[in-house]
Amino acid sequence: VLKAEIAAEFRSLVGEDWFLTAPEDLATYSYDAFIKEFQPDAVILPADRAEISKMMRVASREKINIIPRGAGTNLCGNTVARQGGIVLDLNRLNKIIEIDTANLCAVVQPGVINADLQKAAAQFGLMFGPDPASMMACTIGGNVALNAGGPRALKYGVTRDNLLGLEVVLTSGDIIRTGGKTIKNVTGYDLTRLLCGSEGTLGIITEIIAKLVAVPPQRKTFLASFASLYDVARSVSSIIGSAIIPAALELMEKVLIDLVKNYAGLIFPEDAEAVLLIEIDGDEDSIQSMSHRITEICFEENALRVDSASTPKEAERLWQARRAVGPAARMARPLVFSEDATVPVSKLPDIIQKIAELRQKHRLMVGVLAHAGDGNLHPIFMADMNDTDEMERLEQFIQEMYEATIAMGGTLSGEHGIGIAKAKYMPLEYNAAAIEIMRGIKKVFDPHNILNPGSFL
Amino acid sequence: VLKAEIAAEFRSLVGEDWFLTAPEDLATYSYDAFIKEFQPDAVILPADRAEISKMMRVASREKINIIPRGAGTNLCGNTVARQGGIVLDLNRLNKIIEIDTANLCAVVQPGVINADLQKAAAQFGLMFGPDPASMMACTIGGNVALNAGGPRALKYGVTRDNLLGLEVVLTSGDIIRTGGKTIKNVTGYDLTRLLCGSEGTLGIITEIIAKLVAVPPQRKTFLASFASLYDVARSVSSIIGSAIIPAALELMEKVLIDLVKNYAGLIFPEDAEAVLLIEIDGDEDSIQSMSHRITEICFEENALRVDSASTPKEAERLWQARRAVGPAARMARPLVFSEDATVPVSKLPDIIQKIAELRQKHRLMVGVLAHAGDGNLHPIFMADMNDTDEMERLEQFIQEMYEATIAMGGTLSGEHGIGIAKAKYMPLEYNAAAIEIMRGIKKVFDPHNILNPGSFL
Repeated sequence: VLKAEIAAEFRSLVGEDWFLTAPEDLATYSYDAFIKEFQPDAVILPADRAEISKMMRVASREKINIIPRGAGTNLCGNTVARQGGIVLDLNRLNKIIEIDTANLCAVVQPGVINADLQKAAAQFGLMFGPDPASMMACTIGGNVALNAGGPRALKYGVTRDNLLGLEVVLTSGDIIRTGGKTIKNVTGYDLTRLLCGSEGTLGIITEIIAKLVAVPPQRKTFLASFASLYDVARSVSSIIGSAIIPAALELMEKVLIDLVKNYAGLIFPEDAEAVLLIEIDGDEDSIQSMSHRITEICFEENALRVDSASTPKEAERLWQARRAVGPAARMARPLVFSEDATVPVSKLPDIIQKIAELRQKHRLMVGVLAHAGDGNLHPIFMADMNDTDEMERLEQFIQEMYEATIAMGGTLSGEHGIGIAKAKYMPLEYNAAAIEIMRGIKKVFDPHNILNPGSFL
Repeated sequence: VLKAEIAAEFRSLVGEDWFLTAPEDLATYSYDAFIKEFQPDAVILPADRAEISKMMRVASREKINIIPRGAGTNLCGNTVARQGGIVLDLNRLNKIIEIDTANLCAVVQPGVINADLQKAAAQFGLMFGPDPASMMACTIGGNVALNAGGPRALKYGVTRDNLLGLEVVLTSGDIIRTGGKTIKNVTGYDLTRLLCGSEGTLGIITEIIAKLVAVPPQRKTFLASFASLYDVARSVSSIIGSAIIPAALELMEKVLIDLVKNYAGLIFPEDAEAVLLIEIDGDEDSIQSMSHRITEICFEENALRVDSASTPKEAERLWQARRAVGPAARMARPLVFSEDATVPVSKLPDIIQKIAELRQKHRLMVGVLAHAGDGNLHPIFMADMNDTDEMERLEQFIQEMYEATIAMGGTLSGEHGIGIAKAKYMPLEYNAAAIEIMRGIKKVFDPHNILNPGSFL
């Protein structure tokens, strides 16, 4: 609990309106898109880097935990006050400072919403690569802190690949700048990418230089339907193995198709066990040759049908169906969450088979959704937290799934992050020496362990 | 100087033949592609990670400096024993372990030569993005340690963008693995990219998982000639500003053209003050539309001529001329080195003008060579080390050039690294707080400061 004089000090730093301690405010900030709830002692909403610098000096002096937060859409419990402290809401830093068309980049504050940056960039025929499913709500600061991806990461990369520089307030209150507007920069250690994906544990990001790329001249969306999950998985491996890089390659299993069929009124083939939503982009010529080859591969792997969206509206409807999976699942069962197991793409058939086996064994409602082209699975688990037996089976399922993932050369997280959701699995992927190095790095940035403590380290 | 019993211990670890102390061997390892020479106390050539782990334990126990080295082609004095110690030559670890076509990656040991990896990948229609000018000699381990680029970095990125995972021996002798064969990985801090570009100061890289990409179906090379350097610079800004990404966009100034004209017998237009070597790649369709637009832009910016290579042989000859600049310059003056100032591409005309001014002011032989598309300049300085006055003017020139570079929002190094060459300029780009963080990270990995000490930190 915060001492009254310290609370007063924070309050005077940001002004009366921007330091919240009312029970209803604390309740609002006690959860994010993950499951666990922790009530903070206060919420602070500074106006700028100077206020953040000052409040970090106070927090360091008083050893008060600070939990930075954008939109709270992260899926791993990264923005909740697990060990008490103050939630630092960055949403007042929400300016798009510059769209620099000459240097193909944008300078933005952390609270800018992904979709707003996309809109601003689109006016110049540009876009920001990462397109997380939460793009209508999530912030660029959150995208950087979590190293967010999205369907088109397959072609355009995750946030780290689309990041040029940062301004960061350290726990000491010092402000540093990393990188800049140059595409290349190898001066000193790569702090930019170290901070990207650091899940709010190393510093407070106050400005971001994001790379922009040209909006492709044309796009084409397909829906390939298959009677077997393994045929889909093999199609994906074949497409990638023949060095075609679609803009997106999304796999959806029947259980999820059925959910969005009811939800969005979309028509999918009745006999499909799984569908592949494929988007390619580029020039007319390359779209044609890719279309041809992809269709060929799908039929070689026993596709039932390959349909292409004939209008942009039809294509958008297919994408809406993809994005509707989360909300639709939430209508089916009380507890819904998406895991993030990621394997080398050649192992896609194996991991999908493994998940099917585990589903049988543990009798759970799970549907595979996947950014299949980069081996990034998002199995959607649907359960009820009040059913202790089901929750135990769920726990067991996830443990076995991650063990299999790592055994296949995969990773615990392709794009959602670790947070508290998967902290306990870290030793599956990294040995003790590597984890010690990470702890050492954390200590360099945050000697008093006040920044988002109790996270993955 | 190494104690006899310690030398014996190292010798017994790797075998008689692989621990060198003969004066001629020490002389061979006393320099790299930078200027300064420092004689090591010994040279060790281990066979594998196990030997490296053992020798690092001894080095840590005895506090003996270890300087990892591949081909020694780095341009910033990164592989010399500045404070004494043992040079660790990694060339025996030279196996291409796997070309994984299903996952579009290669697993290689650090001593594999870049060109050899390119050759192995080409058999499967694949390539490794980075193509440093030294690619016939430099090693992949060196590429990772220095975060190497090359002309086609403009489209295909630098080494960090083409890196999936590492195996690293720490100074403690512990071995860690980072990343893997998955395209996406956000588990824990991004140690892979922290190690990339760390210039041999954090750990010994013993295995690399490198991303491979498809060799583009077609390529086209142009040579655009201009009567003014500023017209070239403006053309580059216009090309990038219109969101065209060529595979390479290389600028060469008259003083350098004259050198390679003599050297390679190539014919360049007589009235050209500068040329732009442009390579585009992709499908026929996109090549055609890019060709058209690029030619248009060049003429809008007053190009004298735009010629395209009509055969692959002609194109290769143009590229050979580009690569011959270094050797040709070395025939002109005794001391030749290439700087690495990098600016946002919109600032290219400004920095080129600044260099022209400094050339006048300091009366030096300097020719601008540039990976112009990403604002990465390599001014080639030609001088004589025995001319003290010239050397002083050179020093002054470089200082002023980097001050201007940073003032334009640029960086000290686009792809060559910092090493001892540019250590003293670090405070121009990073403030004290950022440098302290880097020093802290160094200490986490290397508490006794035995790994490549006296480098940029």
